[in-house]
Amino acid sequence: MSARFYNPVDTRFGWNSLVELASITEHQKVALVTFPEARGLGLIDRIQDLLGDRLVYIIEDVQPNPDVAQLRTAYEHFWQNAHDCHTVIAVGGGSAIDTAKVLIVGTESGRFDELLALLATGKPFVPARCKQLIAAPTTAGTGSEVTPWATIWDSASQQKYSLHLECTWPKVAIIDPQLMLTVPAAVTVSTGLDALSHALESIWNINANPISDTLALSAIEDILECLPRLHRDLSNKELRSRMALAALKAGLAFSNTKTALAHSISYEMTLRYGLAHGIACSFSLPLVLGLAWGRDQARDRTLQRIFGNDLHKAQDQLREFLHRLEVKTEFTDYGITALQAREMIDCAMQGARGKNFIGSQALCA
Amino acid sequence: MSARFYNPVDTRFGWNSLVELASITEHQKVALVTFPEARGLGLIDRIQDLLGDRLVYIIEDVQPNPDVAQLRTAYEHFWQNAHDCHTVIAVGGGSAIDTAKVLIVGTESGRFDELLALLATGKPFVPARCKQLIAAPTTAGTGSEVTPWATIWDSASQQKYSLHLECTWPKVAIIDPQLMLTVPAAVTVSTGLDALSHALESIWNINANPISDTLALSAIEDILECLPRLHRDLSNKELRSRMALAALKAGLAFSNTKTALAHSISYEMTLRYGLAHGIACSFSLPLVLGLAWGRDQARDRTLQRIFGNDLHKAQDQLREFLHRLEVKTEFTDYGITALQAREMIDCAMQGARGKNFIGSQALCA
Repeated sequence: MSARFYNPVDTRFGWNSLVELASITEHQKVALVTFPEARGLGLIDRIQDLLGDRLVYIIEDVQPNPDVAQLRTAYEHFWQNAHDCHTVIAVGGGSAIDTAKVLIVGTESGRFDELLALLATGKPFVPARCKQLIAAPTTAGTGSEVTPWATIWDSASQQKYSLHLECTWPKVAIIDPQLMLTVPAAVTVSTGLDALSHALESIWNINANPISDTLALSAIEDILECLPRLHRDLSNKELRSRMALAALKAGLAFSNTKTALAHSISYEMTLRYGLAHGIACSFSLPLVLGLAWGRDQARDRTLQRIFGNDLHKAQDQLREFLHRLEVKTEFTDYGITALQAREMIDCAMQGARGKNFIGSQALCA
Repeated sequence: MSARFYNPVDTRFGWNSLVELASITEHQKVALVTFPEARGLGLIDRIQDLLGDRLVYIIEDVQPNPDVAQLRTAYEHFWQNAHDCHTVIAVGGGSAIDTAKVLIVGTESGRFDELLALLATGKPFVPARCKQLIAAPTTAGTGSEVTPWATIWDSASQQKYSLHLECTWPKVAIIDPQLMLTVPAAVTVSTGLDALSHALESIWNINANPISDTLALSAIEDILECLPRLHRDLSNKELRSRMALAALKAGLAFSNTKTALAHSISYEMTLRYGLAHGIACSFSLPLVLGLAWGRDQARDRTLQRIFGNDLHKAQDQLREFLHRLEVKTEFTDYGITALQAREMIDCAMQGARGKNFIGSQALCA
């Protein structure tokens, strides 16, 4: 069977690279999607200065884990009022970028429920219209700037949708570590751990390939070294840059494999227990490492380049790394019994992402 | 200043992945560009079997270092007789892939000299028409399958042209190590060293960036370990696969930096002394490493991850590696005096690729 690597995103990286927005969007009408704190941080003013009157529409109330209830209004307002813009710029974390991916996919009617109905079928479709996306992450973690996927939550019915079209690949990703300089400790950790989870999940993945492995290994090495140091020294520009880059590499890696069991577990932890995404998808990494180990020689070789060849030491290393960042690593720490945990893992293994896990068939059999 | 990484090629990798040609070109008329030995190796029959009557045109006399004299005839015949095909498939080494890149760029008149005149201006242009390219390398070295560039030689006037358009990015690259299994020792070495040169040149390059570095380091590590072993064990499938992958990673790395001084030196060595490209661009690597060292801290850090921090040991390591592969590393070995070598390096430093070298400004001043 052959492996595949494909990532068409034009990626710009560097301190203050946000200024490239101006040249990239020349002669285009632009809409901005960002998070509520962006204005207070001076980010909207800065983008306004860069774009002038090309900036014709702003959405600045994106909430974490974008929910259908909020998206419906934003979507329909956007297509009624900004249908003539050419490009949507997302500046924020995964939620802002995922929201922008939803917005750019235009339905025939301009109604959000038409999009939801298409997503509910789970089948590929060609949208009636689509705008161009530029993504500038303000956290080092999401990876959404270099993937075509968006996760849409429906908390009322306790489910989630996944959007993924050829046109939802961002055209350009601008990774500017300067935007991450003021991210508080808790978010720095949870987003950094999301990146670690992306990289590890791309390795213990049935879709792993040699290019994604190369990028993932480099990302993991950087995160294990940098994140604890950054946690103690949040204004360190070099560490911010290295984490931004590590998150980018993790994003490029999992852009070709999708995530696996740890993320499948996380959805339940977020929907049912309200856990922040980065914690929800990383607290179980030592456990999932144990479930991955010994399933496939090539996967073991890749994992052992990071962790050595003793599983228990590897799990301890990962647990201690998480504990140092004040992340609890056991289900019981979150009030979940061993039996409930077992059921949750079994269920996660059957989910779309769980099926990407190399141990899923053997363990489900 | 910000760095950029962009590579839109859809890359397939794996033993026998050539079969994917069939599904990738479904419902398309296809032309094949390949090398003279391909028919004897059964390669044309195999592709004919895969494509059936979709294969409408074959060019099988591609020569090493494609020259304007040969290209003119092939180009005009192609546009007269295969203008209705949708896709060109290049199966071969760098010369076959570069030839295909030239063919797919259609001039208004269908005349080759119109293309040459456009290239001679050195300015970007939008071609009148363009076909889609699929590249399947049969050597582990060229990298041309994941870059938009082609080198066109004009041996009569001792010069070369460089083709580079948005449409000359291959749409798909199929890296099938099985196609490389019968490559003889000398070509295995020279193409493998071309890949090593791509990777190193992407590091000591003013266009280096963190993603190209990650890919280059991984490629160099693999080549230093695998190529001598493969040289002694040419039918080893695992080593063929690892070298194919290393060449791909080196190709992805330099697809965003272009090459530098060692390649700039090589053009003269090929045009004037007829040296095979892979030897011409690698015999000087120990020397160029010495010229790169100490120019830039970040570049030194990246080089030292491979070679340690003692320059002389690093140069010795590289020299011994080349000697073990029976490649001579000094200009005098090729009948070039110290004075001639000095002049050649000075001249190479002024060339388009030479200017990418991190030491070029300091050394030319």
